[in-house]
Amino acid sequence: MIGRLFRVSFYGESHGYGVSTLIEGCPPGIRIDEDFISKELGKRRIEDPSISTQRIEKDEFKITSGVFNGYTTGAPISITILNRDVDSRPYETIKNKPRPSHADLTAWIKYHGYNDFRGGGIFSGRLTAAMVAAGAIAKQLIMKYGINVYAFTKSIGNISLNNDVKLDDVVNNTYSNPARCPDPETASKMIELIKETRAKGDSIGGVVEAWVTNVPPGLGDPPIDTLDGDIAKAVFTIPGVKAIEFGKGFDIARMTGSEANDPIALKDGKIITLSNNSGGINGGISNGMPIIFRVAFKPTPSIYIPQKTIDLRHMRETMIRLWGRFDPCIAIRAPPIIESITAIVIADHLLRWLAWEKYLEEK
Amino acid sequence: MIGRLFRVSFYGESHGYGVSTLIEGCPPGIRIDEDFISKELGKRRIEDPSISTQRIEKDEFKITSGVFNGYTTGAPISITILNRDVDSRPYETIKNKPRPSHADLTAWIKYHGYNDFRGGGIFSGRLTAAMVAAGAIAKQLIMKYGINVYAFTKSIGNISLNNDVKLDDVVNNTYSNPARCPDPETASKMIELIKETRAKGDSIGGVVEAWVTNVPPGLGDPPIDTLDGDIAKAVFTIPGVKAIEFGKGFDIARMTGSEANDPIALKDGKIITLSNNSGGINGGISNGMPIIFRVAFKPTPSIYIPQKTIDLRHMRETMIRLWGRFDPCIAIRAPPIIESITAIVIADHLLRWLAWEKYLEEK
Amino acid sequence: MIGRLFRVSFYGESHGYGVSTLIEGCPPGIRIDEDFISKELGKRRIEDPSISTQRIEKDEFKITSGVFNGYTTGAPISITILNRDVDSRPYETIKNKPRPSHADLTAWIKYHGYNDFRGGGIFSGRLTAAMVAAGAIAKQLIMKYGINVYAFTKSIGNISLNNDVKLDDVVNNTYSNPARCPDPETASKMIELIKETRAKGDSIGGVVEAWVTNVPPGLGDPPIDTLDGDIAKAVFTIPGVKAIEFGKGFDIARMTGSEANDPIALKDGKIITLSNNSGGINGGISNGMPIIFRVAFKPTPSIYIPQKTIDLRHMRETMIRLWGRFDPCIAIRAPPIIESITAIVIADHLLRWLAWEKYLEEK
Amino acid sequence: MIGRLFRVSFYGESHGYGVSTLIEGCPPGIRIDEDFISKELGKRRIEDPSISTQRIEKDEFKITSGVFNGYTTGAPISITILNRDVDSRPYETIKNKPRPSHADLTAWIKYHGYNDFRGGGIFSGRLTAAMVAAGAIAKQLIMKYGINVYAFTKSIGNISLNNDVKLDDVVNNTYSNPARCPDPETASKMIELIKETRAKGDSIGGVVEAWVTNVPPGLGDPPIDTLDGDIAKAVFTIPGVKAIEFGKGFDIARMTGSEANDPIALKDGKIITLSNNSGGINGGISNGMPIIFRVAFKPTPSIYIPQKTIDLRHMRETMIRLWGRFDPCIAIRAPPIIESITAIVIADHLLRWLAWEKYLEEK
Repeated sequence: MIGRLFRVSFYGESHGYGVSTLIEGCPPGIRIDEDFISKELGKRRIEDPSISTQRIEKDEFKITSGVFNGYTTGAPISITILNRDVDSRPYETIKNKPRPSHADLTAWIKYHGYNDFRGGGIFSGRLTAAMVAAGAIAKQLIMKYGINVYAFTKSIGNISLNNDVKLDDVVNNTYSNPARCPDPETASKMIELIKETRAKGDSIGGVVEAWVTNVPPGLGDPPIDTLDGDIAKAVFTIPGVKAIEFGKGFDIARMTGSEANDPIALKDGKIITLSNNSGGINGGISNGMPIIFRVAFKPTPSIYIPQKTIDLRHMRETMIRLWGRFDPCIAIRAPPIIESITAIVIADHLLRWLAWEKYLEEK
Repeated sequence: MIGRLFRVSFYGESHGYGVSTLIEGCPPGIRIDEDFISKELGKRRIEDPSISTQRIEKDEFKITSGVFNGYTTGAPISITILNRDVDSRPYETIKNKPRPSHADLTAWIKYHGYNDFRGGGIFSGRLTAAMVAAGAIAKQLIMKYGINVYAFTKSIGNISLNNDVKLDDVVNNTYSNPARCPDPETASKMIELIKETRAKGDSIGGVVEAWVTNVPPGLGDPPIDTLDGDIAKAVFTIPGVKAIEFGKGFDIARMTGSEANDPIALKDGKIITLSNNSGGINGGISNGMPIIFRVAFKPTPSIYIPQKTIDLRHMRETMIRLWGRFDPCIAIRAPPIIESITAIVIADHLLRWLAWEKYLEEK
Repeated sequence: MIGRLFRVSFYGESHGYGVSTLIEGCPPGIRIDEDFISKELGKRRIEDPSISTQRIEKDEFKITSGVFNGYTTGAPISITILNRDVDSRPYETIKNKPRPSHADLTAWIKYHGYNDFRGGGIFSGRLTAAMVAAGAIAKQLIMKYGINVYAFTKSIGNISLNNDVKLDDVVNNTYSNPARCPDPETASKMIELIKETRAKGDSIGGVVEAWVTNVPPGLGDPPIDTLDGDIAKAVFTIPGVKAIEFGKGFDIARMTGSEANDPIALKDGKIITLSNNSGGINGGISNGMPIIFRVAFKPTPSIYIPQKTIDLRHMRETMIRLWGRFDPCIAIRAPPIIESITAIVIADHLLRWLAWEKYLEEK
Repeated sequence: MIGRLFRVSFYGESHGYGVSTLIEGCPPGIRIDEDFISKELGKRRIEDPSISTQRIEKDEFKITSGVFNGYTTGAPISITILNRDVDSRPYETIKNKPRPSHADLTAWIKYHGYNDFRGGGIFSGRLTAAMVAAGAIAKQLIMKYGINVYAFTKSIGNISLNNDVKLDDVVNNTYSNPARCPDPETASKMIELIKETRAKGDSIGGVVEAWVTNVPPGLGDPPIDTLDGDIAKAVFTIPGVKAIEFGKGFDIARMTGSEANDPIALKDGKIITLSNNSGGINGGISNGMPIIFRVAFKPTPSIYIPQKTIDLRHMRETMIRLWGRFDPCIAIRAPPIIESITAIVIADHLLRWLAWEKYLEEK
């Protein structure tokens, strides 16, 4: 469960009935636009087989509770995205031969061999459809406060977007190319790199950047439930994530205080900071500036190149050569997931913040 | 509250009565060595005023519940470290002038001005003494399973430890120099840089690396409570943290799958991986290899150089010039904190894992 | 969410897609017998229209995640019982006229009119099918430790089972009559009373008693998560519950210590108590004796007799006369629900207890 | 931890350093009147040795975090009541001889003998001082909304207050006599009974009733976190509780729907019910009427009459004869505890409700 008031769970498996989300604690009266959910789910799909998996899911979903006459009811909301285009044959191969850097081995150990290994089970990228469905509800919740969440591909391998990207480009261009990169030129280079990598049977990593705009200052609940900590934990539920950094992130470790500190100023009567090296969060609390963070995705561990592994039946070393359908780069599929996970955490902290604000309003 | 079975809270303020931890769910029968707690608290202190704060706390602590005749009782454990060497005068300055990149502004907004601003209140590095006290209990819990947690300074500014550090050096050298760096030569350069920075009235950032050895494979509870996600969330409770990366971290985003994947092999009948780019975690579950992660600390936001800020009483722009006692580099004080926070998360996941293992044992 | 390790949620509505449960934290490797689930769901049905609702649900269910090849996988388990025999017409009546002592009014207020009022929405007895599905999993979990949960009707109106009921009768007779009463003679009187009550268009309350046998001593986690408190909270999720008492319950308030105390003794080397006025729990922890508690159910608030209420559209007083399909006595449908809810709480505390036991085993 | 937003823990032992509460999530800006806390703690004391324990604690407390300049800061609040008048000698007797119906045996089993048995450790009535301290904060929080919580002794043994008690008598008389009974005449009879019982070396049970007035309709969060369920769970943290009933409670199980249902009506434009058999809660949600519930307390298990028990060292049957200081009737000490525990739950649900109300306000 992510969250304390707006509480989200994920369940389902890659090759089972479907993947689902359960949302508890969502306020009533939020208009739920099913087309919006469809559109959000659509942002996960990259229908270019040269750079993406050939598994094509239309992502039919059904809301099975918590929405009535087009509005949230206040009761738990559940959404299921059915699995259709399932081909479990290739997974017989991996049943006893864990794929390096996949969850196959750890799942086999933790679940004593009982886990549904088909398609990666709960560790599949397929689960992210449930994240997007939950995110679509969260986005409709936070929209009322004008909060927007954006994410885009920042780098693929060594191809990196430069730092002066504009919000307009993020809004307009991100989903107009399969690299999910707001700069069309950089996007082309990224796509080229992914194609080359795929041609070699290999995969490639990348970095996704997120921006959250119009967040009221005051969200976050230290000392434990910091806003950055809660975002971080939620982001690690996404398969393939290895790192997260806010604002200047790791670069700030090389800076001095006089370089890194964000001077405080006023603009049109509103408190702002003149730079945003903090990424919109200080002391675990939003400061009113855009929240900015980056997430590192590893290369898809599924590659066509033979790899060393072990045979779990006979406990001996062996090789594995995969076949089947894989994404050569999971990072480019991640922007809508990052947006969704972020919206979920923001929705929860927004409600928590509203409780105190309302309490303090009362005389 | 961090954790689900081994549950830890922090409270207290920098200039109040003291800083404390409450631990719920700790099993009974763990021998609590008070000298060990003292020694752990001692690792936070760097008694070299040229590179550390002049505030010297002896960190007297008292265990006020949950320990009886030298053993944990199974009841909630509370430990308080009293505040002694408190000088609140400098904080009158900041009462109405938030320090850039500090939590002063966000705290003032969130708490509507009611927060205890003295010494940074709950946002002070002082709170980390409570983290270390809780960590000392967690370490004594996980020791029974042979699990050890180490942390050391990886870089300060541009001075960086190279990558082939040995466990022996980590164990023996880290706390033998005030830079908390296992390589004495690099430590000297780090100390030099901190001194230079301080002489300019400035501060500097750094990176701390953690190693957790002997973690049984199977810890972590996806899809939500991943081991890396829970470590990440807990790490963000530490003041000054801006980023965390596991294994190869952000570098993995530039790698291909064939480079990044950790081949699986056998060694003395035990499953290992031939490299550890994953940092010991796959799919949110420990894989039996050392857990390795790095945390970026920003430069101390408190510097002696004048900075732009606003006056909250009159809502106008102004300058702030700080005086008082600050660390020029919080990163070098962080290794014991990182160790403690990590031990807390491991203790919780160890207990969760034991519940299932025990259940599955029963025929 | 009920529970800390074995965590259960309920969702769905009476006249929506279906009612569901989500179980997180269930260990892998538990054989799931679908016939057992069907049989448990069947215990909710009383197919005698003279004393039960005419709505007949066959309670087809599907397990949509977390079970693979007949065993739990360790991943979240979801089970949905589809709604089929839905007739929402009568609910137009109540849309604006809240039924006295129903949740109609409080739901309308809390959810600002957005709740799915059809069939009582989430407040319907229909939701208890999801509770039984979750309970069927929990029962299969605790069976491994020989723990059994029984519940039966203790009284209906003024017809009460005497106090010397035998375990054998509970096991063999409870579900052999529609009153769910282990004594056939008392059962007949109860059924008679329900029929008479129904004939008057009225309804009647009752008391259900639960027995949990073979609970290991040591379950429960005071000071907060007491075993009795966790059972109590879970029991109040069942519609119609107004009271719960353990052991002698309210009668103990009239007793002296010398009458009420359970003397401690040994039997075959095992610690027992010579009486069980405590109902198997002391200090919030199971003591190894059977856990015994009783739950009071109010009469079904839906009756055919006209009642005073208000019209929410015009905010004026009016009368309501219900038609449709109602149970004249919800208590007789409650035994399997009480069993299920209890099994869920016991499963959670069993796992929590195992974590400590396993930890303490290790030398 | 009780609560989701306003979160309360208890810790400490009867004969240790003190007993404490930690409150997380309390909004800032609540005026904390230390005299009020003292007065609340004073309500626990009954300084008449003929009917109460001779242990007299002045209940000195200190607030060690979360309050600054007389207001809550928004940070965690901790309050400790120090133990002073400790006499651990009598407890050597019970170290190996568990007192019947006490937690001695279950604690010894659960904590493997490591528990602090002195004075009952965490199971002592002493812990309730921490509950009252937390309740005093909660009461100051809910006062802003005009919510009041009252509790009084309803019955002791067979001496029972009649049912038509007036609010004025509850407010004015409850704490003016040591029986905590709003009717002076009944109070005298109760005191007489307690004295007689004590003279025989015995103890006696009782029932406490609680009233919560001015609760806004809409508090409670079904399907799981019902308001009655959360009150019930919290009430079972109090030592000696065996039962709880809302409204008509167990009596409702003997009623018909036409008798039990509370007709809905309007009064001065406000929705009310003409009776309050529901005790102010329907479907787990407050309905705006006073919340009314009763709690059964067992007789103090500590009596001076010899009792059968076992010797844990030699695992053989033996007798125990207690000496020391005990309350002959814990029920009369319970009203302020019940008030406090209830205020804590109401505070949490009030904040949760405010979050939604504020969200729905926004256009």
